[in-house]
Amino acid sequence: MTLPPDLVQQLEKLLGPRLSQGAADRDHHAESASFHRAPPPDAVVWPESAEEVSEIVRACADAGVPVIPWGTGTSLEGHALATRGGVTIDLTRMDKVTDIRAEDMQASVQPGVTREALNTELRATGLFFPVDPGANASLGGMAATRASGTAAVRYGTMRDNVLGLQVVLADGRIIRTGTRAAKTSAGYDLTGLFVGSEGTLGIITELTLRLHGQPEDVAAAVCAFDSLEHAVECVNATIQSGIPMARIEFVDAVAARAFNLYAGTTLPETPHLMVEFHGSPSAVREDAERFGELAREFGAQGFDWATSPEDRTRLWRMRHGAYHACLILRPGATGVVTDVCVPMSHLPAAVAAAAEDIREAGLIGPIVGHVGDGNFHSQLLVEPGNEAEITAAKRIATRMAERALAVGGTITGEHGIGIGKRPLMAAEHGEGWQVMGAIKAALDPGNILNPGKLVPDRN
Amino acid sequence: MTLPPDLVQQLEKLLGPRLSQGAADRDHHAESASFHRAPPPDAVVWPESAEEVSEIVRACADAGVPVIPWGTGTSLEGHALATRGGVTIDLTRMDKVTDIRAEDMQASVQPGVTREALNTELRATGLFFPVDPGANASLGGMAATRASGTAAVRYGTMRDNVLGLQVVLADGRIIRTGTRAAKTSAGYDLTGLFVGSEGTLGIITELTLRLHGQPEDVAAAVCAFDSLEHAVECVNATIQSGIPMARIEFVDAVAARAFNLYAGTTLPETPHLMVEFHGSPSAVREDAERFGELAREFGAQGFDWATSPEDRTRLWRMRHGAYHACLILRPGATGVVTDVCVPMSHLPAAVAAAAEDIREAGLIGPIVGHVGDGNFHSQLLVEPGNEAEITAAKRIATRMAERALAVGGTITGEHGIGIGKRPLMAAEHGEGWQVMGAIKAALDPGNILNPGKLVPDRN
Repeated sequence: MTLPPDLVQQLEKLLGPRLSQGAADRDHHAESASFHRAPPPDAVVWPESAEEVSEIVRACADAGVPVIPWGTGTSLEGHALATRGGVTIDLTRMDKVTDIRAEDMQASVQPGVTREALNTELRATGLFFPVDPGANASLGGMAATRASGTAAVRYGTMRDNVLGLQVVLADGRIIRTGTRAAKTSAGYDLTGLFVGSEGTLGIITELTLRLHGQPEDVAAAVCAFDSLEHAVECVNATIQSGIPMARIEFVDAVAARAFNLYAGTTLPETPHLMVEFHGSPSAVREDAERFGELAREFGAQGFDWATSPEDRTRLWRMRHGAYHACLILRPGATGVVTDVCVPMSHLPAAVAAAAEDIREAGLIGPIVGHVGDGNFHSQLLVEPGNEAEITAAKRIATRMAERALAVGGTITGEHGIGIGKRPLMAAEHGEGWQVMGAIKAALDPGNILNPGKLVPDRN
Repeated sequence: MTLPPDLVQQLEKLLGPRLSQGAADRDHHAESASFHRAPPPDAVVWPESAEEVSEIVRACADAGVPVIPWGTGTSLEGHALATRGGVTIDLTRMDKVTDIRAEDMQASVQPGVTREALNTELRATGLFFPVDPGANASLGGMAATRASGTAAVRYGTMRDNVLGLQVVLADGRIIRTGTRAAKTSAGYDLTGLFVGSEGTLGIITELTLRLHGQPEDVAAAVCAFDSLEHAVECVNATIQSGIPMARIEFVDAVAARAFNLYAGTTLPETPHLMVEFHGSPSAVREDAERFGELAREFGAQGFDWATSPEDRTRLWRMRHGAYHACLILRPGATGVVTDVCVPMSHLPAAVAAAAEDIREAGLIGPIVGHVGDGNFHSQLLVEPGNEAEITAAKRIATRMAERALAVGGTITGEHGIGIGKRPLMAAEHGEGWQVMGAIKAALDPGNILNPGKLVPDRN
């Protein structure tokens, strides 16, 4: 696809050097944190305001050219790849925290602000933004993919922490969704509709976020179990008993080995849980004690408590660095990362079945997960370009998704659809997938917003 | 409007005596818990399954006849009135709790199950469903209007507690939205779209609900303040300090007087807060103590702690009976109930301005609210049929909504749009309201699902 010269001229006039058709810029926006690949976009633009995004979208809509929003490129399902060519809208220059309303525990941010940048700006306020997918993703991208991560069990996902949005629609109109009130019942939940719509319904140009008080006290721990089943059953029992956890993460024996090799830790090479409690000092102490008792009933041992901020940082850096740590298990390999979420009662069997599939395929695939939500991942290590291995890995990922569906779960807990999970959408949603397509057609009749993703192809 | 004879015949064949065109049945379904009035529907049907709802909708769609879903008729904004005639689908016979999955902390229910009926069935499981709008509404109606209530500050609204739905679409197709997993990022959040859509996008025929553990311990209290500002500032300070509240309710001096007259209590006739804490015994004790200290800083006194279930029931029955209690202040009057929600920092001024408006209009209008969410109501007592008073009350309600919008709030925190708040939708959403209209047109091209509500009129 070549861009119409009129469009290029129009965008050049609007953006000057913030339009690029250079190979390096285009190639950079064809990169993906996963094994998904697509040709580069035809051009990249770097708008600095909602009005510029609106003009870009309007111009591209007139020319029938796709637009693809881009945050930090950390998506794992190829969301931001220009599979049908077009113009990638890189939002990294829209990186201002526009307003912190500490008294309302809210912030307004442009979409290119990363979660770490926001939390740095919030440090002095006593507040923080809790959604933490590991990667230092942009908040716009996190909203667009309905990201969650380790703290969702306590603080919720992006669905729960985005109060409102400013969105540029397919025809360039700029709308605002939601309010600054804690709740509303004023009509359709457009905020919730755009959160998770992956750039297919509009381009997020501002977010109103719910903030939370930095906990007065925090305690974190890692402990070892003799089997996967015992670790996961312990999670279930902890939730049932109502102990309020801020994080509860599963790490299997393979991942523990990777941490030891990568970071020089001396974890027993068995399944682990990593937990964190937030609250007043006495509440944290009580929660930690109750969890400790419960975990010991399931055979947990080797408790390593981290109460200082430095120790906790070390502990969670290990968890968040899992992807890179695990690559050490097979130098030169790349990871095919799976992502399913199941009802809690089905979690032990789902994790065990996934581990068995990986073993049978002869692959190395450590399993980690946000198990308090029933959400887990395996990182299947494959040789880049080895089609047989990639096919085997994809087959395992598909089987995990199918097994999740069979027990009422979902094909993706937090990574989203993009191009990777699209073939499974009909299996999860049935006729509901067509309803998504009808909504897309109504709001983007020209199919220019990130086409080829998430919804069914048009007839 | 008279129903086409073919349609009546078709419905009679399907439903037998569960179709009625009798005046009593029709009139019953023209009743409203508020001052909104409309002519009765042309017929009422009582389906017993999603398949029957589907057939009814299909038949009505073919005939171009509106369908209006009906739960318990407790809506305050005329949601379920047949403003354009048609067939009211009374869902009270679909009242089965179809599945309780205690291990996953979930239940599946038909839409006619009321929240009290569900909680009765859950009693032995140690779980409960927390959304509590006061009225014993149907869960289908609560989802359709995105209800919340006193416990939302801790447990969230229907948006947060509905995991999935079965919905009959405008063409009779039956779809499922959401999953039984705790979270999902698999495409557009259709569950969230149907929650709060007030029967205009589809008819809910089953709900998958998130349950919560019954708290190990509960403590509730009521305490008095010398001014509205001190009470509301205390709420703000409590939230900022991170004390986890299960409920925090404001009751003004006028409402306190009503309780005394109605229930024989001896509250000081000043503003009050009613609070509740859930957790382990020691956590509840600590939270209650911290709140007590904070409240006393704002001049709170006359703490009345209710720790026994009976005392708590008495306390909350008072709050939930507020509507009826307040009617005693003007025998023979009916209430025009307002509902706005504002950012916390604007709450004291918003409540004070509303009280001032009521005083100036010479009306009696007690103010109560779920102030932990920034949500409050006044109950403007007007003489039935007194158009001047109703007009004055509506003007006050509109001013409250406009003031809420001016500070980034919403025209309705939990009562929804129906017909009452529809004239204010453009002011809240701007062009976003047209987007809602586009979604409605895409999913209900014949405009048969609860027409005349929520979205703009078609061109």
